[in-house]
Amino acid sequence: MTEAELIERLRALPLHPGALRLADDAARLGDLVLTKDMIVEGVHFLPHDPPGDVAWKLVATNLSDLAAKGAVPEGALIGMPIGEDRWDRAFLDGLDAALRAFDCPLLGGDTVSGGRTFSLTAIGRADASPTRSGARPGDALWVTGTIGDAGAGLAIAKGAAGPDSLLARYRRPMPRLAEGRALAPVVTAMMDVSDGLVIDAARMAAASGCAVTIDLAAVPLSSAYRDWSGDPLAAATAGDDYELLFALPADVAPPVAATRIGQFREGDGLALTDGDDPVPLPGRLGYLHLSR
Amino acid sequence: MTEAELIERLRALPLHPGALRLADDAARLGDLVLTKDMIVEGVHFLPHDPPGDVAWKLVATNLSDLAAKGAVPEGALIGMPIGEDRWDRAFLDGLDAALRAFDCPLLGGDTVSGGRTFSLTAIGRADASPTRSGARPGDALWVTGTIGDAGAGLAIAKGAAGPDSLLARYRRPMPRLAEGRALAPVVTAMMDVSDGLVIDAARMAAASGCAVTIDLAAVPLSSAYRDWSGDPLAAATAGDDYELLFALPADVAPPVAATRIGQFREGDGLALTDGDDPVPLPGRLGYLHLSR
Repeated sequence: MTEAELIERLRALPLHPGALRLADDAARLGDLVLTKDMIVEGVHFLPHDPPGDVAWKLVATNLSDLAAKGAVPEGALIGMPIGEDRWDRAFLDGLDAALRAFDCPLLGGDTVSGGRTFSLTAIGRADASPTRSGARPGDALWVTGTIGDAGAGLAIAKGAAGPDSLLARYRRPMPRLAEGRALAPVVTAMMDVSDGLVIDAARMAAASGCAVTIDLAAVPLSSAYRDWSGDPLAAATAGDDYELLFALPADVAPPVAATRIGQFREGDGLALTDGDDPVPLPGRLGYLHLSR
Repeated sequence: MTEAELIERLRALPLHPGALRLADDAARLGDLVLTKDMIVEGVHFLPHDPPGDVAWKLVATNLSDLAAKGAVPEGALIGMPIGEDRWDRAFLDGLDAALRAFDCPLLGGDTVSGGRTFSLTAIGRADASPTRSGARPGDALWVTGTIGDAGAGLAIAKGAAGPDSLLARYRRPMPRLAEGRALAPVVTAMMDVSDGLVIDAARMAAASGCAVTIDLAAVPLSSAYRDWSGDPLAAATAGDDYELLFALPADVAPPVAATRIGQFREGDGLALTDGDDPVPLPGRLGYLHLSR
């Protein structure tokens, strides 16, 4: 069964109205926003990744889903296996650091014996939340921060040469919580960039019933990434950025630092340009693992 | 690290007030009650258990925690791996059946690749909830239903001879949701019996700062269990009953069908009797797996 088939089957189960037809990254329950992620050794993290970074990333990626909803973290429940002592202690240190950094206290959890599969349910609070499906033809596409750093960091984690600053972007992503709260009231659509800028923008356009064009020349790159590679297409098709991708009416400026990188139009599908020149779509639009 | 050490370390993390110091089976957030369980193949279920029963049990055990809080199920988030097609379909059929049976719609979830580790976060609603720590000297100890059937069912699942009715108690436990709602306003303490009547009663007494005596002759046994074994000590030290264990002032009758099996006293510790005769404590008080 593919992930898409499994999600279709999950959609056929009795769904809560707050599940939003499982078409978004988080559920709503009153003013609460709920999101759940599992991570598996060898799939979502590397066996030699520092355990504290694994814990940090587990928290940060869940809170990134809350950020895209403009939510303030309220708490989290963790499911974790009991394993090798030194590994577990380092994991808990990273968990402590992340919970403190993002002011997200632990609400509960479960400990099990078993392999290194971890689960987190993060709960936030927001009055109203944008979805990924509200972009309209004419809206501009924006993104916070810089793109591609974490993809470079993954290559560095796997043995490529490169600076620690890029590795850190892969191992200790920072959810854009403050930016998300500022953006939520003004955007027409918002999501976090987890699988790659291009594929996530295509998903936002498809959910919104629009076409989208991304100008690769406008994709914001860090100076570290420019020194490391500088390839904007590689940056825009790598994953794990955890920046916020959002749509705004053409005449609205975002209330936070961000870069305008594209345009929604009538129709459907995705187009890339380099300035005004069309760029053929690559075979791979993003990081397609089985899990999102 | 033992489970107890890990829980101590989790308690040292930033905790939400609703975490109740991680001393209970569920967290509180306003009128919401939250609980999270992970289950692992080979630890919490057998590789040859029917997949639909695994899903049922995942839902039922979480909802049993809500039942002990007198909560009405509101929804659940699931984390599940994508595996072998036929297994996954059967799992989803069991998930569908359980969600419908307990009126607990799906709120969201996450799909991953990886081994058979599943996670569920169940959310319920209750005005006020009993804890496991409110029993007072003089209170009587009560339990719903019958005890030991699921323990017999586990033995049957592993190859022992025995009736399907006992196997079903192990594979398709029924959370006592209606009973929990009726009991919540009147009990002084309540929890569900997951690891075994004796060990869970000892935990309630310890949390409440009391001693407890259980009369094994009073432990309610089903006729199927009497035919199969009839040993009350084996019944009271097996796990997976998912009945409700609760304390009531001596002069209060429970509003649901239940059996009075013991007594809280000043002091601490656990004692067993057979009628008026003391019974030595067995070496094993319950089902002590690494996970609760």
